[in-house]
Amino acid sequence: MTGRFISIEGLEGVGKSTQAKHLNDWIANKGHTIVRTREPGGTPIAEAVRDLVLEHHSEKMMPSTELLLVFASRAQHTEALIRPNLNDGHWVLSDRYTDATYAYQGGGRGLDLDLISNLERIVLNGFKPDLTLWLDCDAEIGLARAKQRGALDRIEQEEIGFFNRCRAAYQQRFNADPSRFIRLDANQTEAQVKKDLINALEGWYEQLS
Amino acid sequence: MTGRFISIEGLEGVGKSTQAKHLNDWIANKGHTIVRTREPGGTPIAEAVRDLVLEHHSEKMMPSTELLLVFASRAQHTEALIRPNLNDGHWVLSDRYTDATYAYQGGGRGLDLDLISNLERIVLNGFKPDLTLWLDCDAEIGLARAKQRGALDRIEQEEIGFFNRCRAAYQQRFNADPSRFIRLDANQTEAQVKKDLINALEGWYEQLS
Repeated sequence: MTGRFISIEGLEGVGKSTQAKHLNDWIANKGHTIVRTREPGGTPIAEAVRDLVLEHHSEKMMPSTELLLVFASRAQHTEALIRPNLNDGHWVLSDRYTDATYAYQGGGRGLDLDLISNLERIVLNGFKPDLTLWLDCDAEIGLARAKQRGALDRIEQEEIGFFNRCRAAYQQRFNADPSRFIRLDANQTEAQVKKDLINALEGWYEQLS
Repeated sequence: MTGRFISIEGLEGVGKSTQAKHLNDWIANKGHTIVRTREPGGTPIAEAVRDLVLEHHSEKMMPSTELLLVFASRAQHTEALIRPNLNDGHWVLSDRYTDATYAYQGGGRGLDLDLISNLERIVLNGFKPDLTLWLDCDAEIGLARAKQRGALDRIEQEEIGFFNRCRAAYQQRFNADPSRFIRLDANQTEAQVKKDLINALEGWYEQLS
């Protein structure tokens, strides 16, 4: 049997790493092997592209350049890591995937959503996560937590309006395909988010087989 | 008046740099200012992407990754350097542009040409050189010259069949839009190629105004 592909989405500082750990343990308890990865990145070449995307540069990166770099990284990640592992029966758990592009380059940067979906079609040919956990949280709260972690990268240093637009774009993605998503209210305590997560996962898992 | 955009195309070792110098002098003699650039590359970010494309990596780069990186570099190069300079009235002379993608990623790597033209449309929206010099030469001859220059990059180290397919793809590009091209027989001596170049340029320039 092929594995399942789960992505975790949300703004900076919403608790993705913490809940990913709970998700990881839950999958392991069900007896599946897990490969954990992230976007942009996940393979040596994709991580090198990630560095280019997140580093500060001596010139302004054009939004279309950023978009194409993100998809270059995703093409490598998908073909070299995600698909082969799914075919081998492993579950793959990625910190972010294509929804993040709609959120950040679409919502945040204001790039045309048709441009993104054209690229998605060309590059991924319909491939998407079996399940996406969306940790939804006020942008102010997440950003304040992210700032406590230290120096901000090229995207984290955007103003609050950028992240509000990202959040709205996540909401749009959720509205367009709710059955693929588990939305969690990440304004709650970590314990409560975990409880909601496990409940939702059990419901989803029952329908799988 | 906006400037003109000229690309120089051809395989490794066909004499692009030498003829670019002659072309540069010819344009300068006509009284135009010239910006010389190259692909992949041309701006700090685009050059960083170039390095990623040409470096050797610990994993195989997927053809689709290479294609998207090349277009990411081109998006930056076009928006940050080529278009602004043309708008300022300068002539831009680039060592390679989109035709090289059809040749190398299309012909060489065997990627679907529709995929490339879809990306070209999405990223460049019809933008292309006013004139393309194609230095056409037997792949064996060019490659032998390139090897004399020292260590080969990730693409230069492909086998001869790869470069024969690139050359055939350049021929296809030429056949589809001959009026944009000046094709030069680069199997000839440098002096003869230069003579052919200047003759063809004079003819093209007369029709411009």
